[in-house]
Amino acid sequence: MFNNVHIKGVATYHPKYKVENKEFITHFKQYGQDEHLKHLMSKVGRKVRTHAEAGETSITMSVEAANRALENAGITAEDIDIIISATDTPEYLMPSCALIIRNKIGAKNANVTFDMNSNCVGMVNAMDVAWKYLKTDKKYKRAMVVGSLVVSPFTKKDDMITSPLVGDGGAAIILEAREDVEERGFLSSGMLTDDRYNDTIRFPACGLQNIIKEETDTNENKMQWNPFDFSFLAGEWTRLIESLLEEQDIKANDVSGYFMSQFSKDDIISTMNKLGVDNEKATFVADKYGYTGTTSPIMALNDTLKERSFKKDDHIIFCSVGAGYVMGAMLYKW
Amino acid sequence: MFNNVHIKGVATYHPKYKVENKEFITHFKQYGQDEHLKHLMSKVGRKVRTHAEAGETSITMSVEAANRALENAGITAEDIDIIISATDTPEYLMPSCALIIRNKIGAKNANVTFDMNSNCVGMVNAMDVAWKYLKTDKKYKRAMVVGSLVVSPFTKKDDMITSPLVGDGGAAIILEAREDVEERGFLSSGMLTDDRYNDTIRFPACGLQNIIKEETDTNENKMQWNPFDFSFLAGEWTRLIESLLEEQDIKANDVSGYFMSQFSKDDIISTMNKLGVDNEKATFVADKYGYTGTTSPIMALNDTLKERSFKKDDHIIFCSVGAGYVMGAMLYKW
Repeated sequence: MFNNVHIKGVATYHPKYKVENKEFITHFKQYGQDEHLKHLMSKVGRKVRTHAEAGETSITMSVEAANRALENAGITAEDIDIIISATDTPEYLMPSCALIIRNKIGAKNANVTFDMNSNCVGMVNAMDVAWKYLKTDKKYKRAMVVGSLVVSPFTKKDDMITSPLVGDGGAAIILEAREDVEERGFLSSGMLTDDRYNDTIRFPACGLQNIIKEETDTNENKMQWNPFDFSFLAGEWTRLIESLLEEQDIKANDVSGYFMSQFSKDDIISTMNKLGVDNEKATFVADKYGYTGTTSPIMALNDTLKERSFKKDDHIIFCSVGAGYVMGAMLYKW
Repeated sequence: MFNNVHIKGVATYHPKYKVENKEFITHFKQYGQDEHLKHLMSKVGRKVRTHAEAGETSITMSVEAANRALENAGITAEDIDIIISATDTPEYLMPSCALIIRNKIGAKNANVTFDMNSNCVGMVNAMDVAWKYLKTDKKYKRAMVVGSLVVSPFTKKDDMITSPLVGDGGAAIILEAREDVEERGFLSSGMLTDDRYNDTIRFPACGLQNIIKEETDTNENKMQWNPFDFSFLAGEWTRLIESLLEEQDIKANDVSGYFMSQFSKDDIISTMNKLGVDNEKATFVADKYGYTGTTSPIMALNDTLKERSFKKDDHIIFCSVGAGYVMGAMLYKW
């Protein structure tokens, strides 16, 4: 018998407030960047993004997504043993967001609670950790991985990359351990870190120790993005995905769905082309929601599952990239 | 053959700047709390604590501890496959501190890099996750768990609990996968979360979204500690430790060393008494360093290993508690 880990339920939360491209294009006219921005929006595939409204935080969004995922899975909060929150905009560092979420949803049997942060690889990375807990320790039956990004308040208004490209939202996915006669569920995972861009994206820009200093401009408590060449994406994603497929002796074209970082549509298409895979297999949702970081591959899965279901033995891939940079991927068999 | 995970090296870093009890007692006279503070210092066992100096952050301290742990282990940074940083005072949320530390120490083969936060249970929790990576995936041979707490800048000067009790410092521990004919190394782990105190400790007190608002007082970017009854500690630590010992059929008295949260000497002694264990088996170091949160059980191990070594088949326990609260423990066999 194999101690497998399956996807039991998934859900997302999007704030109601929508912002269209034209608002940003008008705003960036004052910097003479409107034409450049139009080109960028087209390359990365943006139309509309959702922004947090007053009172919405990474915790409120996580809680909304968590409750919806429980409903989708047909279980209650008390059925959850492990909560991992994966966000790089945690409303609090003390206590962990996972512990606050546990309290808000009433997951009174969740003894394992912690936060993880590998930026936009966060939820993929946290699914990997949840998989390892469920696979190695029979005390645990179900894990909830919950993530959110509330980044619109932290972008600088003159930053053409972050400000127009990002969106706020939450997502949650529930994993369950089951014994099967064959190996299925999560099959393999991998990460790839190259720290050459470690100083390009920084939040808070001033460093944590400076947020308490009177002399720090509050604008410096926001996010800094120094432009860098991200043409490495498609090549490195391909390398990472191929290493997982090779481990399991599966062909890229035999994978039924690709749930990628939603940062750039152009780079997703390049990756599919490099893998020799029909572009339609990679769901793209950032045209509707903006780039929602850690949650973005899970949002792509969630929207796909509303349109079509996967059959037994279908394979899917999760793959993302985070600041610095770090990549993470997982291979799953339904 | 068993795929075991062993401790390969350990090290700590303490800032040079030392603060004695008398400085705090003098300071708290103005609030009429000096006698109460003397009593508290005695109960929790404080004499001296170390504070970060200008230019020292959770990253610089992590890097110091990481380099020393590599030296202690007799390996180089290039031998590390996984870096997990565990701190609740991360200098940056983007990118992960693990990725910055990777860059600073030159761990160019560390493909897995991420941060974890379960507050003062952080490093114990991160060792648990590292154990699971090394146990389940043969791609990975060595993991570094590195933690630091730089909290002295974030305490409020009129807060009698946090301000005098805490200290700043870093610690690192290197774990290595090895095949043995018997099961040894890490044997079991457990966590226990009860969120009843989820709103007592909050950092940043104002919530992340408010640190960028002009109207937020910078004092509110600091840490809030609303006093609560922590008399649950000894009872709950005992329950958690006993559950791990029972899983492995080991008696509390047969454990050779207890490496506990260094928050309160009194509560460590109560725990040893409840377990029926000689108090000398639990190392206490917070009289020298203050309470250094996530790093504190590892600092206790590090200082113990300078005094004595453990024999093959000796068992040790790591056990800690974090904000909210969450507890974590691990059982290890040399």
